[in-house]
Amino acid sequence: MVGKYLRRLEMPKGVNLMLPLQARRKRVIENKLLSLFSSWGYTELVTPTFEFCDNLNPRRDRELDEMLYKFVDRTGKTLALRHELTAPIARVAAAHYKNAAPPLRFSYFNNVYRYAEPHDGRTREFYQAGVELIGVKNPQADAEVISMLSASLLELGIEEFQINLGHAGFFRGLLAELRLNDLDVLARKAILAAIHHKDAVLLDELLRETGLSAEQSAKLKAVTELYGGRETIGRARELIANATSRGALTELGEIIEILARRGVDRHIIIDLGEVRGVEYYSGMIFEVFVPALGSPLGSGGRYDNLLAEFGFPSPAVGFALELGRLLIVLDKVGSLPDSPTFDYLVVDSADSELGTKVTGLLRSKGYTVIQEVLERAEKASKRYASGLGVKTLLEIKDNQIHLFDLKDNVGRVTSIKELERL
Amino acid sequence: MVGKYLRRLEMPKGVNLMLPLQARRKRVIENKLLSLFSSWGYTELVTPTFEFCDNLNPRRDRELDEMLYKFVDRTGKTLALRHELTAPIARVAAAHYKNAAPPLRFSYFNNVYRYAEPHDGRTREFYQAGVELIGVKNPQADAEVISMLSASLLELGIEEFQINLGHAGFFRGLLAELRLNDLDVLARKAILAAIHHKDAVLLDELLRETGLSAEQSAKLKAVTELYGGRETIGRARELIANATSRGALTELGEIIEILARRGVDRHIIIDLGEVRGVEYYSGMIFEVFVPALGSPLGSGGRYDNLLAEFGFPSPAVGFALELGRLLIVLDKVGSLPDSPTFDYLVVDSADSELGTKVTGLLRSKGYTVIQEVLERAEKASKRYASGLGVKTLLEIKDNQIHLFDLKDNVGRVTSIKELERL
Repeated sequence: MVGKYLRRLEMPKGVNLMLPLQARRKRVIENKLLSLFSSWGYTELVTPTFEFCDNLNPRRDRELDEMLYKFVDRTGKTLALRHELTAPIARVAAAHYKNAAPPLRFSYFNNVYRYAEPHDGRTREFYQAGVELIGVKNPQADAEVISMLSASLLELGIEEFQINLGHAGFFRGLLAELRLNDLDVLARKAILAAIHHKDAVLLDELLRETGLSAEQSAKLKAVTELYGGRETIGRARELIANATSRGALTELGEIIEILARRGVDRHIIIDLGEVRGVEYYSGMIFEVFVPALGSPLGSGGRYDNLLAEFGFPSPAVGFALELGRLLIVLDKVGSLPDSPTFDYLVVDSADSELGTKVTGLLRSKGYTVIQEVLERAEKASKRYASGLGVKTLLEIKDNQIHLFDLKDNVGRVTSIKELERL
Repeated sequence: MVGKYLRRLEMPKGVNLMLPLQARRKRVIENKLLSLFSSWGYTELVTPTFEFCDNLNPRRDRELDEMLYKFVDRTGKTLALRHELTAPIARVAAAHYKNAAPPLRFSYFNNVYRYAEPHDGRTREFYQAGVELIGVKNPQADAEVISMLSASLLELGIEEFQINLGHAGFFRGLLAELRLNDLDVLARKAILAAIHHKDAVLLDELLRETGLSAEQSAKLKAVTELYGGRETIGRARELIANATSRGALTELGEIIEILARRGVDRHIIIDLGEVRGVEYYSGMIFEVFVPALGSPLGSGGRYDNLLAEFGFPSPAVGFALELGRLLIVLDKVGSLPDSPTFDYLVVDSADSELGTKVTGLLRSKGYTVIQEVLERAEKASKRYASGLGVKTLLEIKDNQIHLFDLKDNVGRVTSIKELERL
């Protein structure tokens, strides 16, 4: 029997349970971010937890397919829990906003599900906050999204962060220039990962195994060093000899220039080895890091080809922040509320008119008031209250309000008038 | 090709998409309710979207099983999307709060999934707001939950509502008294449904088919008329001759008495034909109705046997409100915000320092500011702004701020100083 109960207490692996402290912190972050997004003109969309599998993965990407929580409808259709919000929002834009004047601005705050992530394999449910700016393809739009990312972190009290900014076009151009487009898929993935992690030793080994020429290898290795301030763009220009990469660098330069005018550039590092999702993204790509957290707090970029999959060819750019990581960072920064605390415990065993007045008054003033529903000794009520962190006990007795300060351990009689002045 | 795109715009049947207007209204209701729940000492829990199937349905109820969205884990375990929040919260209480001093107070606001509901068959995803008060079995706790339900509706601006209050024990006692416990499951369900819907004709037919005695039939039929004010309890007392039903009536009387002292009783109708979920609930049961909406806005009751299924025998009581129905009612009441509106569109093609100052200033003052990211004629910007309901266009030109009132169609030059005074 004990076994049965223990099993019943279990949750599926990797899902998210938020006890009151975390739930409260989630709400604080959620409200701050949604309010900031709204002040920039981004309105919230709430999409369903699951969609048709094909609509979450319109390109039928195999890796993505592996990541989805799929299930079969009673009509035989394959559904999947959403693994992110960008494709669902693209679907909504195509279904409901095809004829609206661009640009479209949407925000979201919701949970997503993914089987085994490479970096933290135990988490499978993630809360994400993000924005999508749809219908514009220019550096102004890119700069707006980066500016918002920066403003979001500052709003939450995170001052030290670094946005690693790259461009999918730069690397795609280089691959074409080096005639590496036909590289075996696995080799390509491995090389991209080594560049992304700036793992020169592994990259060297991979390049040797793949049998690339000295020039090809040298150029790919050079990419891992295209990392730093604005001057990185100049260094990159010397490396490449193709129009696609050159165009990408010009674009990056323009984005940085706008960000510099807004004072956001101090958080930017140019990182042309930022090649994560180079196949999905079409323009700038970025990840945001904070000291002492190995994984990025969030990421994003320009994805001009996704909406076409829903019959609404339209450029788009956006970012997503990971709530779980924000919670870790903000806990260190100390800018999040502690466990919920309660202001009053009202003991009113006669359920008097005065007691009803007192609880109503205090709640209307924004105080948290617990009403004692158990009939127990005053001592037990006090112990219960102290355990919850209640500050003050109010006992209604003989048509009087007895106030007891649980911290200082002193009591006195008070009145409605006095409480009204609180 | 068109077919492919059209299919890609589809959502699974019955799921919930909230465009900005609904998403905004959802947030307003969510924040109001969670804040009210918190002021009564109820802290939020956020549980996972899916759980092990057995934990959502610990009693392996067949009807419930049919209602679940199930899927099989890669390890072969059966998972299901939560169909409500009470069982998940019971599980959390058993896993994390077994040794905490009672009572426990939790709230939630989240979505749940159910296949085909009897009354509105097309909705399968529901948002629910609710509370659970765990660890106390007395009329004070019951009255607290009903008082909160009433306070919640008033807080949302719903003045006219009616809480139909019954007691599972009353009917269970009567069934035992009439020796109807061994009634065929289907017949029993049909009779309960007929009583619940006060369908005297159908009930009559059913009773005749079931071959009950005249006395049995008369008593069951009488239950449909046990509906009305406090005097209903007295009428019910005359009908029954068993201790369980008598105890239930005494309890109901005590709850009503407390509610009367708090002025909440004007919303209460005693309804002893409230037999929905009479097998699940152990004490009081209720549903809340508003004029002009056929389905209940919410429901709840006392469920003293659920937590034992998780190895934590503990009485409990709670309610849940349906967001979808609240949205319908509040739309009629007119107390919900309209579509999001935007205060300013800032056109600053040079991306000037002044422009950055203006947008930053206005956003910090709580205004919604869209920055024009497309380079287009002033006329086109104005049309875009008007389409979104933007009130004012600010154009930054030659280091000046040109303000254009889009409603009155007049423009003038303004200054940072003037904007600071807004």
